[in-house]
Amino acid sequence: MPILTLTTDFGLHDGFAGVLKGVIWGICPMAQIADISNSISPQNVLEGALVLSRAVPYFPDGTIHVAVVDPGVGTRRRALAARFEKFDFVGPDNGLVTPLLEAAEAGGEKVDFVEIVNPKFLLPQVSHTFHGRDIFAPAAAHLANGVPLADLGPAIKDLVRLSLPKPEKTVSGWLAQVTGVDGFGNLATDLPGEEILGKGYVVIRVGDHAIRGLVLSYGQRPAGELVALIDSAGYLEIAVVDGSAAQLLNLGTGSPVEVILS
Amino acid sequence: MPILTLTTDFGLHDGFAGVLKGVIWGICPMAQIADISNSISPQNVLEGALVLSRAVPYFPDGTIHVAVVDPGVGTRRRALAARFEKFDFVGPDNGLVTPLLEAAEAGGEKVDFVEIVNPKFLLPQVSHTFHGRDIFAPAAAHLANGVPLADLGPAIKDLVRLSLPKPEKTVSGWLAQVTGVDGFGNLATDLPGEEILGKGYVVIRVGDHAIRGLVLSYGQRPAGELVALIDSAGYLEIAVVDGSAAQLLNLGTGSPVEVILS
Amino acid sequence: MPILTLTTDFGLHDGFAGVLKGVIWGICPMAQIADISNSISPQNVLEGALVLSRAVPYFPDGTIHVAVVDPGVGTRRRALAARFEKFDFVGPDNGLVTPLLEAAEAGGEKVDFVEIVNPKFLLPQVSHTFHGRDIFAPAAAHLANGVPLADLGPAIKDLVRLSLPKPEKTVSGWLAQVTGVDGFGNLATDLPGEEILGKGYVVIRVGDHAIRGLVLSYGQRPAGELVALIDSAGYLEIAVVDGSAAQLLNLGTGSPVEVILS
Repeated sequence: MPILTLTTDFGLHDGFAGVLKGVIWGICPMAQIADISNSISPQNVLEGALVLSRAVPYFPDGTIHVAVVDPGVGTRRRALAARFEKFDFVGPDNGLVTPLLEAAEAGGEKVDFVEIVNPKFLLPQVSHTFHGRDIFAPAAAHLANGVPLADLGPAIKDLVRLSLPKPEKTVSGWLAQVTGVDGFGNLATDLPGEEILGKGYVVIRVGDHAIRGLVLSYGQRPAGELVALIDSAGYLEIAVVDGSAAQLLNLGTGSPVEVILS
Repeated sequence: MPILTLTTDFGLHDGFAGVLKGVIWGICPMAQIADISNSISPQNVLEGALVLSRAVPYFPDGTIHVAVVDPGVGTRRRALAARFEKFDFVGPDNGLVTPLLEAAEAGGEKVDFVEIVNPKFLLPQVSHTFHGRDIFAPAAAHLANGVPLADLGPAIKDLVRLSLPKPEKTVSGWLAQVTGVDGFGNLATDLPGEEILGKGYVVIRVGDHAIRGLVLSYGQRPAGELVALIDSAGYLEIAVVDGSAAQLLNLGTGSPVEVILS
Repeated sequence: MPILTLTTDFGLHDGFAGVLKGVIWGICPMAQIADISNSISPQNVLEGALVLSRAVPYFPDGTIHVAVVDPGVGTRRRALAARFEKFDFVGPDNGLVTPLLEAAEAGGEKVDFVEIVNPKFLLPQVSHTFHGRDIFAPAAAHLANGVPLADLGPAIKDLVRLSLPKPEKTVSGWLAQVTGVDGFGNLATDLPGEEILGKGYVVIRVGDHAIRGLVLSYGQRPAGELVALIDSAGYLEIAVVDGSAAQLLNLGTGSPVEVILS
């Protein structure tokens, strides 16, 4: 049973994500389809890219991930299908795939890309404003049916890339930044846990606060306390126990997080 | 594999849409079920009708659409099942089906309606306040199992109809209105694109603004610019590139949009 | 086809509920998965417990309900799998299962509990902050595959229990309380309908308002009127016809509702 996922900025009100499912089932009736998120901030490609890349490792091999955060819809930006070793990606060539691609490259993994152009695998009428429906969903469903990647269009190489947030090494440790705020108000950062675990005593400066040491889990401290820990994706996270760090600190994506090792 | 969809005003917090899926799978375990929207504004039948009617054409033939925006639940309003040429509709007889019905009539399509009354196809206990769970979901699931439409109850004809927004022809063009605001803040209108495409130079007056000419897609103009285009459902749309027209113009459903052709 | 449900406080933005589906399908590819709610208020175990318990009776026998509202994740709180007569529950041992358990006990039903500890049925790496992904989803998927409950870990008995809201008998009737506010602004209470139906004339005092008598359904009164009725779960509900009682009365969970019978 083929598995597909959706990561979009369509929101939940207007039926757009439902429409993608209709299109997919029209081509691949047995598909299992999971929403990863349809609540990416409008046009926020980086946010969509990060949410998607954190979810991908937990889907079975062969999953086809459809991602549509697409401010360039209807312009000359290309429509992309990518075959990674364990999954496929289908979406606009605007950087949505960058974190997945960088991880693959870091692991020495081969990735094939094509530009989706073959009208045989699109809806008969392609609009100028809804390629999720007209291009990405049908192409993904055809891949799910076993259509070879190369049948969708010509191979391409020079993808558009996002500049991903990366922590800077400093004299005393790291200058990291907040990469996202989850529904609990926890602040994710770009600093991999392996850069601080076992590297000495950690002090984290964020806003006006200093956090001394890491905890393993929220419940180790009383409600309301500001803590730092390694999150479930392996990165440094700032949290308030049973509360919202984003609210307490009034910080958001892009805010600096200073990490001092001694 | 039967496909069903849900369009409701149940919201996402309380588990009501999930309950409908439980009821459906209890009767038709193989059903694929897509949420079109569970975030229709409470009791807003017109909004639900429009969101549903825009999604329906993209689902495979034979899909059964369950729609529950139902302020009259528990009163004498009838429970409706309708067989269109390509899909079924199940929901209250309060106008939710009107846009689908008008489209079918415009295409000379035959539609059969029955009032759902046969207790054999309902939950054993029918509440006064949750017919989505007790009547519509089970009736739809039985249809998905192949129960003939006529077995649900007697044929009916005189449906309740919504008065749908329609643009008015004016001396200089059209007086259209906003029919909905999507998650991006784009304003949908009731003016079909074919009334303006190829009909001369277009100026659109909306709020204090004038928009000259149409674009094909958002990305043709710089971020922040107010534009007009034909949306993915074929209607005139007012948008702000990478922004929200609803916010910029402070307009919403029902707001007038003046279209001047010259 | 196995059916699983999700009830969590993960929200809809970050992809966490999608990740659970990926994990489940990796183990049990045919699973049908319904979201009951992923919008439980953060860390609100009681709210999650009540939303779940109201939905459970409408799912087919054999459904496996995964519930993750888990402020104690990563502490010594136990991971729980429970077999009821008609369904399984998988989630933290923090009271999420209490309403289901009390209902089973009231019906003289036998329930078996185990602590999930067998690493064979967990993800290879268990994080300290996301047991929904690493413990509950995989354990539930293995149950869906037919793994015996006892294989997950040792039987346990002394579960953590929530103190559930219960109405108090008074000289003149009942002192009930609001147990939840649904998406329409309807106020659910803890008073079972059978305590007032056929027990005389009912007056309900709530905030500064008095409601005389019950209605059967919203549509029996004009829009805007404050009414009381028995809701679709069988409890006293306070509502405003086509409006929000929560807003009109400025009340929420925990607010007192006085019921006078005469």
